[in-house]
Amino acid sequence: MKQRVIIEHVTPEIDGGRHAIKRIVNEPVKVSADIYADSHDYIRAVVRYKHESEKKWSEVYMSELHNGNDTWTAEFAPTQKGFYQYTIQAWIDNFLTWHNGFIKKFNAGQDMAVELEIGVDFLKKVRKKASKTDKQFLDSFIELLANKEQYHEAVQTVMSEDFRQIVMEFPLRQHMTNYNNKLDLQVEYDKVNFSTWYEIFPRSASRTPGQHGTFNDVEKLLPQIAAMGFDVLYMPPIHPVGKLNRKGRNNTVTAMPGDVGSPWAIGSDEGGHKAIHPQLGTLEEYKNLVDKARGEYGIDVAMDVAFQCAPDHPWIKEHPEWFIWRPDGTIAYAENPPKKYQDIVPLNFETDDWKALWEELKSVFIYWCEQGISIFRVDNPHTKSFNFWEWCIREVRAEYPDTIFLAEAFSRPRIMQGLAKLGYNQSYSYFAWRTTKKELMEYMTELTQTEMREYYRANFWPNTPDINPYHLMSGNPKMFELRYVLAATLSSNVGVYSPAYEQYEHIPTNNGKEEYYYSEKFEIKDWDWDKRTPLSHLMATINHARKEHKALQQTANIMFLTCENENLLPYLKWSDDKSSIMFCVVNLDPDHAQAGWIQLPLEFLGQSQNNVNVFLNDIPSGELYHWTREWNYVYLNPEKSVYHLCEVTVS
Amino acid sequence: MKQRVIIEHVTPEIDGGRHAIKRIVNEPVKVSADIYADSHDYIRAVVRYKHESEKKWSEVYMSELHNGNDTWTAEFAPTQKGFYQYTIQAWIDNFLTWHNGFIKKFNAGQDMAVELEIGVDFLKKVRKKASKTDKQFLDSFIELLANKEQYHEAVQTVMSEDFRQIVMEFPLRQHMTNYNNKLDLQVEYDKVNFSTWYEIFPRSASRTPGQHGTFNDVEKLLPQIAAMGFDVLYMPPIHPVGKLNRKGRNNTVTAMPGDVGSPWAIGSDEGGHKAIHPQLGTLEEYKNLVDKARGEYGIDVAMDVAFQCAPDHPWIKEHPEWFIWRPDGTIAYAENPPKKYQDIVPLNFETDDWKALWEELKSVFIYWCEQGISIFRVDNPHTKSFNFWEWCIREVRAEYPDTIFLAEAFSRPRIMQGLAKLGYNQSYSYFAWRTTKKELMEYMTELTQTEMREYYRANFWPNTPDINPYHLMSGNPKMFELRYVLAATLSSNVGVYSPAYEQYEHIPTNNGKEEYYYSEKFEIKDWDWDKRTPLSHLMATINHARKEHKALQQTANIMFLTCENENLLPYLKWSDDKSSIMFCVVNLDPDHAQAGWIQLPLEFLGQSQNNVNVFLNDIPSGELYHWTREWNYVYLNPEKSVYHLCEVTVS
Repeated sequence: MKQRVIIEHVTPEIDGGRHAIKRIVNEPVKVSADIYADSHDYIRAVVRYKHESEKKWSEVYMSELHNGNDTWTAEFAPTQKGFYQYTIQAWIDNFLTWHNGFIKKFNAGQDMAVELEIGVDFLKKVRKKASKTDKQFLDSFIELLANKEQYHEAVQTVMSEDFRQIVMEFPLRQHMTNYNNKLDLQVEYDKVNFSTWYEIFPRSASRTPGQHGTFNDVEKLLPQIAAMGFDVLYMPPIHPVGKLNRKGRNNTVTAMPGDVGSPWAIGSDEGGHKAIHPQLGTLEEYKNLVDKARGEYGIDVAMDVAFQCAPDHPWIKEHPEWFIWRPDGTIAYAENPPKKYQDIVPLNFETDDWKALWEELKSVFIYWCEQGISIFRVDNPHTKSFNFWEWCIREVRAEYPDTIFLAEAFSRPRIMQGLAKLGYNQSYSYFAWRTTKKELMEYMTELTQTEMREYYRANFWPNTPDINPYHLMSGNPKMFELRYVLAATLSSNVGVYSPAYEQYEHIPTNNGKEEYYYSEKFEIKDWDWDKRTPLSHLMATINHARKEHKALQQTANIMFLTCENENLLPYLKWSDDKSSIMFCVVNLDPDHAQAGWIQLPLEFLGQSQNNVNVFLNDIPSGELYHWTREWNYVYLNPEKSVYHLCEVTVS
Repeated sequence: MKQRVIIEHVTPEIDGGRHAIKRIVNEPVKVSADIYADSHDYIRAVVRYKHESEKKWSEVYMSELHNGNDTWTAEFAPTQKGFYQYTIQAWIDNFLTWHNGFIKKFNAGQDMAVELEIGVDFLKKVRKKASKTDKQFLDSFIELLANKEQYHEAVQTVMSEDFRQIVMEFPLRQHMTNYNNKLDLQVEYDKVNFSTWYEIFPRSASRTPGQHGTFNDVEKLLPQIAAMGFDVLYMPPIHPVGKLNRKGRNNTVTAMPGDVGSPWAIGSDEGGHKAIHPQLGTLEEYKNLVDKARGEYGIDVAMDVAFQCAPDHPWIKEHPEWFIWRPDGTIAYAENPPKKYQDIVPLNFETDDWKALWEELKSVFIYWCEQGISIFRVDNPHTKSFNFWEWCIREVRAEYPDTIFLAEAFSRPRIMQGLAKLGYNQSYSYFAWRTTKKELMEYMTELTQTEMREYYRANFWPNTPDINPYHLMSGNPKMFELRYVLAATLSSNVGVYSPAYEQYEHIPTNNGKEEYYYSEKFEIKDWDWDKRTPLSHLMATINHARKEHKALQQTANIMFLTCENENLLPYLKWSDDKSSIMFCVVNLDPDHAQAGWIQLPLEFLGQSQNNVNVFLNDIPSGELYHWTREWNYVYLNPEKSVYHLCEVTVS
């Protein structure tokens, strides 16, 4: 006899189970499915899950939503890192069918004698699989129900809540049906869900103007980076920079003497992807920086991995077969026809020698893992082989399970999603181009209310060395402020390219693109590393609020609140257990005061229309608001503040 | 090297490919998928499909929608009945990548000498798989591109439209990727998509009052049923009716002498599911009716199959193991606790002897197929084993591929959908309970704009012997009219229980349910078979319009038009090739005239704001309307007509 229950529309299930969903330890997985069968027999269902190290499945019972659509749900939380599988099992439980029928028939005044006899049969069936103690326990009921002298007592017993417990706790699993997919869950290093990134060019880290910065200079900056609340320090590639076809300032084709080139044009006679730019320091100094950052400041140093080569990268001579050569004997530069990028040569991931190439590339990650790196920001992964990434990320994480790969792709949605599904643990996002209330709400809805929630961890960056967005080009400090507030409170993963950001760097190239003039990509900057702007203080305030409030350490639990003013964006965020609830409202207009009425979600807050008691503790101002109505007036004057960020308590 | 293209979100694909989609011959299948790859290389993709009798796959190229979401689509139409498979194949086509780059580089004024050399390599590669003639054809291009003396001519040739055709027609299939599912398509008897059902109780077919009707009486009704445009004649079960526990009039528990019982209480000492009720006639007479209906009138006779037994059905004695027996030795009647249905005994589909039972039940279908039946209306299939139906329908259709199974389930959505997915070719629907404009639009949207479109063929019934809906209980003839117009123009499959419907039968039981008083289920009715009401004429008009206009012979192509009046429901329907377009507007208010402005979908009709020329030929009135504006005024007075049904032509 075949399985009799139908299990359909299981979520989360990514592409028919082809890809894993992602969680951290203790982060709940909500499983939902449509479950039904022929006839009016009662169904029961469990979600089964198992860590890769375990042999036995754990079970959690599903509940029917009674929404008329046969939807059942259950929730579990992984307790350790690594891979889990989860699936669904459902069965017809005629012990339960009988018991429900018994209650209805008794209430209709029918004679229950035969029903008691049937009950004895069911009890005997479930007894077979019971433990010794349970067998004795069940025997007493069997005896009672079988005793015709005790008809009334037996009927009352079956009608009791205690007996219902027996029915629920001793399921009769008939026509057991297994969902035909075992789904994968990947449980990762906590920092994938909550991280605060600070990007600097180490060669600009010197406090002496005109001098090439070093790892030792960076080390000296750690206290102030930590004081601002950052926990990831990300530096562009630290390898030797190509000398052949090196780019000059402002991305000019010919470098002048002294031009330092782009750190993404990797490799020269000084070495390639496993070497360190001699002017930055030694491997030892780099490792010291990594160790000190983590050990003393809780900061992970993230490495930039860009799998491309300057024309003088050692691989080109050692492995010409890894590159594409044109019929005239020249090497194929990176290009986007008709444009050519002559300081960069792409690798040919489909070369006949691909196995050796892939192993070598993997060994780059392994090498840096061995030096203490656990976070890789991967440059333009979408222009490299997807098959390579799926294989490589799995291999590296098998040896170093806490490794985080951040995908630096700003491409079409399917490409961004694809990289995340193939293994990237974090992803850059479209945040830099989402500015209006409608755009921000729609984007957050996509990230948190669709399947993306299960596998795509967005990282929100107001700027990067490549992205000087139009709305920041005027240099309006209030725009810089509100964009950081949005990035760091909408998303639990946030990053800035700084001190450019704190110091309101904003002059664009004159090519019409969202790029920086005199970009730090092509030259050393003489930053005033001691300068503290109002924005620096705002960023510190928000970063510390993020550390203190669990609601801000996750992205998915967000609810936008109703407010007519198109320039006010109010929202709630909360931790899974709701022990932490935060209210945020941002004035999207940096130039004018904005005011409006904001609706509290009373049901969500456990409040009633007649009795609203919501306290909002505003972190930037330290003020306490007491809201006693559903609709509340908010006024934000950018001259004073572009936002409120409040801890919410109710009574 | 692994497959390099990613193929995701394929539609139609039912439950990961578990179930087949359904079509008739020449009905198009629109396949869509998200298709993308790493890098900027060009992709090409084909939908492949194959009839079960064919060895070779056919291919149709997919087009990219360029919607920013990497969506590709293609369409094919099956040319014969039976099972097809379809899937997707995609590849990186670097011949195309090169050609697109060539055009951009040439337009940017670059030297193309090396590009021509690369082109020669590509031409040589595609040449390898070309036919002998094509090889010669390609050789001339290879020669030209390789000849440095003819640089300018070669460049102009590559830039030509002719050369683009070569690139498209000689694809270079590298990194070929096969979608991992082969999907099923079931191509069926045309009538599944377009059928007009007439349900009568044959025992009421006599023109002599008080006399039990016969098949011969039904035969005499064929001319008038055909004249009204019906092409399926459905009769409730024609088997012997149980005598034990027979129900009386109005569903009373005890039958009086002369009570005929419910035809769904099947079986007595006169026989079971393969026998014929002696008072209806002989098997020969039944076969005569079936043959004559089909041969002379194009009417298929549909048989009602209800797999349940009266307590005196022969199976109970012959196969007691097929039923459930209670501990006190009594048989388990059908029940829905606390209610018991003592004239009916359910079969136990999970009996230990299930193989024999299932074979016997299948043999019932096969037996009646052998007698010439090709349409089965199956009673309450959701209370019988889903596994049985999946197996049985496949088995019967393997022997008799033109068989149609109609599922008579009025249950929850997943159950209704589940039966259709498991094999039912047509399904009853919620139409009888969808009355407001909003409800009708939402229900049609669900049926035609969701996955249901691919497998669920709804049949719309304004009434059935079991359903006397509240809105018909007043007997308002205009309500009867508008409900038939809706059923027969929204859905291409429609049915009525008649002559009850034509004669405005409407008196309800007094139990508060949507049931008929003195229901024909429990007694013989003395209908006036010669009576022709205005509704009879309206039904005939609409049925004939359905036969003449292809737009009404399908359900999925429907567009509701904007109209502010909540009582006017306007819509367009069209055939797949748009050679037939119909406009319909129904006044949902039977009691009052309603008027409103209706917006024409100009783009759909190929019209521009400045030049609207739409002709509407109203079938019921014969009037011709010429609409020259986007918004048009419509007035419907029920006293004159509850609807317009117009053939649309544009110029």
